[in-house]
Amino acid sequence: MRAYFDHCRSTFVDPRVLEEMRPWWTEKYWSPAPFTYTGTTVAEAVEESQMAFAKLIKGKPEEVHFAPSHTVANNIAIQGPLSTGTDELPHVVTTAVEHGTIMDTVRHMEKLGLMRVTYVPVDKNGVVDLDALREAITPQTSLVSLATVNYMVGAIQPVDQISSIVRERNPRAVLHFDITWSLGRTLDHSFAPLADIVTASVERIHGPKGLTMLWVRKGVNVKGPIYGSQAYSRVVPGALDVPAIVGARKALELMLDDLPGKIQHMKRLRDRLIKETMDAVPETLLNGPEGDLRSPSNVCLTFRYIEGESVQMYLDMEDITVDTGSACANPFLEANHTLLAMYGDYERAHGAIRLSLSWASTDEEVSKFVEVIPDIVAKLRKISPLAPKEYKER
Amino acid sequence: MRAYFDHCRSTFVDPRVLEEMRPWWTEKYWSPAPFTYTGTTVAEAVEESQMAFAKLIKGKPEEVHFAPSHTVANNIAIQGPLSTGTDELPHVVTTAVEHGTIMDTVRHMEKLGLMRVTYVPVDKNGVVDLDALREAITPQTSLVSLATVNYMVGAIQPVDQISSIVRERNPRAVLHFDITWSLGRTLDHSFAPLADIVTASVERIHGPKGLTMLWVRKGVNVKGPIYGSQAYSRVVPGALDVPAIVGARKALELMLDDLPGKIQHMKRLRDRLIKETMDAVPETLLNGPEGDLRSPSNVCLTFRYIEGESVQMYLDMEDITVDTGSACANPFLEANHTLLAMYGDYERAHGAIRLSLSWASTDEEVSKFVEVIPDIVAKLRKISPLAPKEYKER
Repeated sequence: MRAYFDHCRSTFVDPRVLEEMRPWWTEKYWSPAPFTYTGTTVAEAVEESQMAFAKLIKGKPEEVHFAPSHTVANNIAIQGPLSTGTDELPHVVTTAVEHGTIMDTVRHMEKLGLMRVTYVPVDKNGVVDLDALREAITPQTSLVSLATVNYMVGAIQPVDQISSIVRERNPRAVLHFDITWSLGRTLDHSFAPLADIVTASVERIHGPKGLTMLWVRKGVNVKGPIYGSQAYSRVVPGALDVPAIVGARKALELMLDDLPGKIQHMKRLRDRLIKETMDAVPETLLNGPEGDLRSPSNVCLTFRYIEGESVQMYLDMEDITVDTGSACANPFLEANHTLLAMYGDYERAHGAIRLSLSWASTDEEVSKFVEVIPDIVAKLRKISPLAPKEYKER
Repeated sequence: MRAYFDHCRSTFVDPRVLEEMRPWWTEKYWSPAPFTYTGTTVAEAVEESQMAFAKLIKGKPEEVHFAPSHTVANNIAIQGPLSTGTDELPHVVTTAVEHGTIMDTVRHMEKLGLMRVTYVPVDKNGVVDLDALREAITPQTSLVSLATVNYMVGAIQPVDQISSIVRERNPRAVLHFDITWSLGRTLDHSFAPLADIVTASVERIHGPKGLTMLWVRKGVNVKGPIYGSQAYSRVVPGALDVPAIVGARKALELMLDDLPGKIQHMKRLRDRLIKETMDAVPETLLNGPEGDLRSPSNVCLTFRYIEGESVQMYLDMEDITVDTGSACANPFLEANHTLLAMYGDYERAHGAIRLSLSWASTDEEVSKFVEVIPDIVAKLRKISPLAPKEYKER
């Protein structure tokens, strides 16, 4: 049995989702052309998916679009509101701890001289510094873009306060929430009333690969960077991936089935992982917040004196999959920028591993990890030039 | 039984393709992170797909990238080579008969003042006017972008001559071929030696939805318009849809299995459709070329005095799916621009229907169409204000 703790990157597609998608691949593989039986059948399926997501986030169905990848969705969310016809360089506010789909986009565009970016700092829990946010937003700010839950340390951001601050400081600024890591991790998903654009990749909730929901409030002007036929959407041009759109609806439906139970289950496994690992391995640091400020599916630990990547490789040999502090869409190809922004400590960032759960995670997987981790860490500390003498002699 | 003649828009996914994709959804759903068993397993599957496409078009595997949609692929192909740092407005050459994924992109960008575009005319067969192409390309031209087979009338473009003309007129201009409608329709797919960028959507050959192969010759500078993590590709940032990448390889493999037989089969059905329809329905016009200049899978007919959309709706009631001259990614939301560019005749364009075949098409489907079409056309002519008196009295 593999113990898989990388649901923040990718999840298996639920067989019930595949089952729901299958007829749209093999029988009803039509395009949603108007005025025909085939076309209207497809168009209805698309609308059902729009309705499901709209209901979840409390938006309107006609405001829901479908992007073919998380990166494309966030590029539309970030670049789309900027092309508003002024000559001035657009000002974008984000945080210092964003995932690559936001961070890499604004970094690249900043480097190419296409935007001016302010990176708002976070506190030691990874939570956005609200005073700094208030200060960062000016009357010239075009866009505020951030994830509602941090991908690396699971910090749940204070979205109500963030929304109030943005509206108060600049009512014309567009507010983009990437809620990918909130999906199925919070009881309440009413993000639309707080924001102008919401993106959500369903491949992290056992949904189809790639497909990303993109909600844009009516009246918000989104232009580019992708052009093409607007027959099905003015926001995401091109053809629709109907099977994936149907699968996304099913994945959301399955996510909502006993969501409180799912959250409770993940919290229990999360707390087992944290407590049992910290009890068994000396000098282990928990990165990110404790308790309710933390996503129920996130565990991020640093084992002092050793490299997260080495831990990852040793765990891999035991059929255990985790992520490390130096990978996962790191724009600098070095120590994780989120942990650096939180702690300013290279060793802590390099030594981090991340375990991300889903509702499909099991106690057996947790036990398997907890069983092997003490030996792996001990072995690596034995050969680490940084480890104190006591670890060499064990 | 439905008779489906819209393979130019979408095809059923071959069950053997789904079978090949399945373990990558349910068991090997990992991301291609380096240094791990899971990661390298996935990375090898991705490389196999790169190799399959590279072998087909005679490029190099490391030059093959994967875009999440046809529209995104063509936006990268078109916008990517433009951002080369000069202040001058980039000059793009395309043809008057392109599909929406090229036509809508350049039209939009031209309208926004982001590029200058020359639309090269075509002859009465829909084939690019080579003298006009030669004239259109200047030392300032950044990009020449066109499809190797026309989506609407199936005209096979003279790619060798086009490539020679582009190289001769401006060796620095980037040449982009969209070979989507050539896939499985020509015996020889060696497009890479002729071009700098090649795009190919596999959803038209019973492959997975969305996924589009994007080959970029080494040394060709492609930047944007999508930014994000370049961990897996400098050309298409973001995560990889591994199941779709695996499915694309399988779809290409199935396409190549007895390709001469497949082409022969489609040609026979195409010629049956054309001949039997034109024999049975008076005043029917064939749009596009005859014989070997025409894609084996394309039939495009105009029934004089009536609307293509009405024909489509009547056929739909008989469970027959076709496309019309006023839809399919038409940038003007009016009569098909390809037919207008070829014939300058609104009636001919409005009255057109397109039937596109695949190797899965059958004689039964053709017979079903041929059986019902004379009555449908007769009924519609009876109520058409444009039809001559003789049709009213039948």
